[in-house]
Amino acid sequence: MSDALRDIRALTFDVFGTVVDWRSGVAREGRSFGERHGITLDWLAFADRWRELYQPTLSRVRDGQLPWTRLDDLHRMSLRQVLEEFGAPTLSGEQTEELNRAWHRLDPWPDVLPGLARLKRRFILATLSNGNVSLMVNMAKRAGLPWDAVLGAEVAHAYKPQPEAYLATARLLDLEPSQCLMVAAHHYDLEAARACGLRTAFVARPDEYGPKKSADAPRGSGGGHDIEASDFGELAARLSC
Amino acid sequence: MSDALRDIRALTFDVFGTVVDWRSGVAREGRSFGERHGITLDWLAFADRWRELYQPTLSRVRDGQLPWTRLDDLHRMSLRQVLEEFGAPTLSGEQTEELNRAWHRLDPWPDVLPGLARLKRRFILATLSNGNVSLMVNMAKRAGLPWDAVLGAEVAHAYKPQPEAYLATARLLDLEPSQCLMVAAHHYDLEAARACGLRTAFVARPDEYGPKKSADAPRGSGGGHDIEASDFGELAARLSC
Repeated sequence: MSDALRDIRALTFDVFGTVVDWRSGVAREGRSFGERHGITLDWLAFADRWRELYQPTLSRVRDGQLPWTRLDDLHRMSLRQVLEEFGAPTLSGEQTEELNRAWHRLDPWPDVLPGLARLKRRFILATLSNGNVSLMVNMAKRAGLPWDAVLGAEVAHAYKPQPEAYLATARLLDLEPSQCLMVAAHHYDLEAARACGLRTAFVARPDEYGPKKSADAPRGSGGGHDIEASDFGELAARLSC
Repeated sequence: MSDALRDIRALTFDVFGTVVDWRSGVAREGRSFGERHGITLDWLAFADRWRELYQPTLSRVRDGQLPWTRLDDLHRMSLRQVLEEFGAPTLSGEQTEELNRAWHRLDPWPDVLPGLARLKRRFILATLSNGNVSLMVNMAKRAGLPWDAVLGAEVAHAYKPQPEAYLATARLLDLEPSQCLMVAAHHYDLEAARACGLRTAFVARPDEYGPKKSADAPRGSGGGHDIEASDFGELAARLSC
């Protein structure tokens, strides 16, 4: 382990894609919702399209077109659009809420729970996600994710990659940014974290977007990350856990 | 269990006094600090006096005399005063920091860990303390407190008993106040929570202040709390956990 990594006290995690498999989870929840309410759709395509609207919707908050809005509410706005695009019947408010909660019911990738158990013995594990606190808490409770703290966008009132999301999280942990290791499967997130002084660990999630769209790939030693790992087990090993 | 309690989704906890025994913990940490640095004091009296300055110091923030200041920093301010009152030698900045961290190293009352383990299976467990996030996270990590979320004063930017401390915590959990049960050993805290719509559970901690000062006592059925319990085991039983 390099000297820089010896100072790490907390690991801060991106969640959607890095910790949990949103695509198969949202599709599964959609399928189950559809069976309950008699709606037949291509739920994998539905999940892909819903997620595709994620960055444009967040941008409306980042750009100031919308006041601070939590991710559950942004998800609901884009859900209405996707339902329309897919020609789904109009849902009641309660049904919309039920489907929107799909994001609370996602499963971690298979390496996550054993990896986090090893990492937790030595480091503070905190979420640094754009997901709101209740979404993260409900997801963790269902999936058994052992976070020490649920931080990130909602407590910072800033959406990644805005610097304040990273800086507020480090500040709430009373750590220097350089004592935090940002863990993510997306280079744009890690680059923004690094610009704030955090250390960075890339974890490859080649299946995040399914077969039709490629995920970020490791960059190798010149890529600027402190660690590149194939999963949370390798991440734990690289951190001597 | 009453109907009102059936709607409870989260338990929100006061921490100092309710979950952890600050008096013997601060005294123990002080004694150990004194041994390392050759300072002999009545550390139990020191702990009592340090805690006595807690409410007056918080009031300076609540009244707007001080801008938002996290509890670690308020503890440090009052620590300097207590050291002077006790005629202690001047400490270095590093030594002050070391002693101030006593509040991060407190042990739970004996019934807490088994009680929380039972409660966690059914409810979201969140801190709703005036302690800052890093203090709560470090304490939980050392003591094994299984919080699902560390919320309360610092994320609300309001110190209990200000309503915003309770309301912001419920909001971050995306719950109605009435879906939250505030657990505390102090009636003033529970009364403020109830005024915001939270349900309340009093847990008696008769030894909180030691032999010379009496702690809040149960009030019986007319006292206004939804539950009064002698410890976290009874609390869990009353909530059918």
